[in-house]
Amino acid sequence: MQFRIIKTNGNARSCVMETKRGVVSTPAFIPVATTGTVKAISTDELKEMGAEILLCNTYHLYLRPGADTVSSLGGIHKFINWDRPVLSDSGGFQVYSLSALRKIEESGVHFRSHIDGSLHFIGPKEAMQIQSLLGSDITMTFDECTPYPSTYEYALRSLELTINWAQKCKENRKEGQSLFGISQGSIFKDLRSESIEKLVEIGFDGYAVGGLSVGEPKEEMYEMIYFTAPLLPVDKPRYLMGIGELRDVLTAVETGFDLFDCVMPTRNARNGTLFTSRGRISIKRTEYKSDRAPLDPDCNCYTCRNYSRGYLRHIFLSKEILSMRLNTIHNLYFYFNFFRNMRKSIAEDTFCNFKTQWEQILS
Amino acid sequence: MQFRIIKTNGNARSCVMETKRGVVSTPAFIPVATTGTVKAISTDELKEMGAEILLCNTYHLYLRPGADTVSSLGGIHKFINWDRPVLSDSGGFQVYSLSALRKIEESGVHFRSHIDGSLHFIGPKEAMQIQSLLGSDITMTFDECTPYPSTYEYALRSLELTINWAQKCKENRKEGQSLFGISQGSIFKDLRSESIEKLVEIGFDGYAVGGLSVGEPKEEMYEMIYFTAPLLPVDKPRYLMGIGELRDVLTAVETGFDLFDCVMPTRNARNGTLFTSRGRISIKRTEYKSDRAPLDPDCNCYTCRNYSRGYLRHIFLSKEILSMRLNTIHNLYFYFNFFRNMRKSIAEDTFCNFKTQWEQILS
Repeated sequence: MQFRIIKTNGNARSCVMETKRGVVSTPAFIPVATTGTVKAISTDELKEMGAEILLCNTYHLYLRPGADTVSSLGGIHKFINWDRPVLSDSGGFQVYSLSALRKIEESGVHFRSHIDGSLHFIGPKEAMQIQSLLGSDITMTFDECTPYPSTYEYALRSLELTINWAQKCKENRKEGQSLFGISQGSIFKDLRSESIEKLVEIGFDGYAVGGLSVGEPKEEMYEMIYFTAPLLPVDKPRYLMGIGELRDVLTAVETGFDLFDCVMPTRNARNGTLFTSRGRISIKRTEYKSDRAPLDPDCNCYTCRNYSRGYLRHIFLSKEILSMRLNTIHNLYFYFNFFRNMRKSIAEDTFCNFKTQWEQILS
Repeated sequence: MQFRIIKTNGNARSCVMETKRGVVSTPAFIPVATTGTVKAISTDELKEMGAEILLCNTYHLYLRPGADTVSSLGGIHKFINWDRPVLSDSGGFQVYSLSALRKIEESGVHFRSHIDGSLHFIGPKEAMQIQSLLGSDITMTFDECTPYPSTYEYALRSLELTINWAQKCKENRKEGQSLFGISQGSIFKDLRSESIEKLVEIGFDGYAVGGLSVGEPKEEMYEMIYFTAPLLPVDKPRYLMGIGELRDVLTAVETGFDLFDCVMPTRNARNGTLFTSRGRISIKRTEYKSDRAPLDPDCNCYTCRNYSRGYLRHIFLSKEILSMRLNTIHNLYFYFNFFRNMRKSIAEDTFCNFKTQWEQILS
């Protein structure tokens, strides 16, 4: 993978990641295709709205249908009908957030499947093996997502484990796949600092900050964003994992982060919360009952080009499947448009204005 | 509406219905857009697979969002983003099958909404008024869908009511909308005969046979199909309501029916039962786990062109929304293809072979 900085504006930067399956322009939003589909929409719709990369969940695909099955079906790209880059997370976060009966030891984690309660073990070697079978373009190191709150002692031990695992992931890295390291350390600056230092020593194709947005107050999260960004190598992609609220994104881009993933825009869409150029709306509100206008008059997405608020309200209240799809198309289009305009503002040295303007709309 | 017979082959016939919103070639399958969407797919997908007409449910749209709301949103076509013909049923069937506390009287039916239990009244005048507000191209008379089994006496009284209502519907018919009459009479031949005779006396743009496939044995249903078809005027469309199993369709087309609607292919799709050129399959079966082949190697639908059985099984088991969509696209494409080939067989005087061949596949 080639990584090039195209333009900086303050610490904000616009870059390109060149993979053998295509280019990703950053700052980039990575839609989450948990089980191999971004919920409610097709990969053709993702292409049409400008998605350049997807995230698939190692934990989910490992449990069902199984990494060997994905492999025998031609690998993740063929499996999900997507020929652009795929990033696979390592499973660390889902083991932490979804599975029961976690038992962490030196070599990895024993856990029970959230689907059928069956017992499983994933460690750094297994995580790399699974991601190799999936055939993703960018793989992630296996980490322990340190819970919040944690004591300093717990966070330290957890961090040491994660660094140890990162080393093992590097050793088990497969040819043809990029590998990003994940920083942990909870909200302790010296641990974050140590974490990044050790990761850089090992050497990765990109660096991620994990373990944020796991329950800590926003101020703590922002402090960690401000603190970690300058520590990350300039010449590699910087990925702020699991964060996608637009205000958070603006702050993180300002500090120099490049990549973001989040289920929020798609989950909100399915719950009827929609983004517009004037702020969020809840489509179920009575005021939209006979409203012939599109969701967002300034939006050019498929949903806004073809349907009225009145119809979208109706199919949402009727719990129609099409509602989730049209809402998801709109929210993701909105996100891609936001990121496109953000990259443009960096190119034009107007990121600061862009940020201020959007902070007003979003407040 | 213009109706022309293009070709007959025995009693089977291929015709065109010309409406101001486009042509419908028959025998035609009419997908059911109950609440204003064919479940799980978009109107663009319906166009792409060749749908020429949709059915919307008066009962559903009357209760939610309300016919006045559909009207103020520009009418049914604008509302659902579909510029081709729409047929609206009259609500009679849903009052019978969905609502609680029906009380039938001379002027119409009192019933409770299945959504919120609220009290409502629909009679022939109201049904025509609602369908006028919707702005459908083809409207249906308001009928009592006679339950099965019914005594002769009940069926007779019910039939008289339905004929009376049909007369009132005709009187309340709105300019610019076609109106089809619906025959009832349960499984009693003399009542069916009388029903059709009276409808023809009143005079409609098309004639439907209702009240079948409501629990009666197949043989009784077939006998009614054989019996009623020759009684229906030759020069008008003949619509067998609510019937769409392909074996039944073959029999009905053989007797001279033109139009069919049924939720079965779409409902089956959502339940993972899929039609192929070699018969039905259940996509959840273990044998498809690592199967790289498309659902049906002979099918050219979007689903078969882009996805493997293994992926379709996986997203079905994962209860992904995309599963319902891809399955629905496949099943409806299969149906439209079946009907296209059936029309071709009539054009080429080979309908009998077509029927025999498909009866073998479907048995």
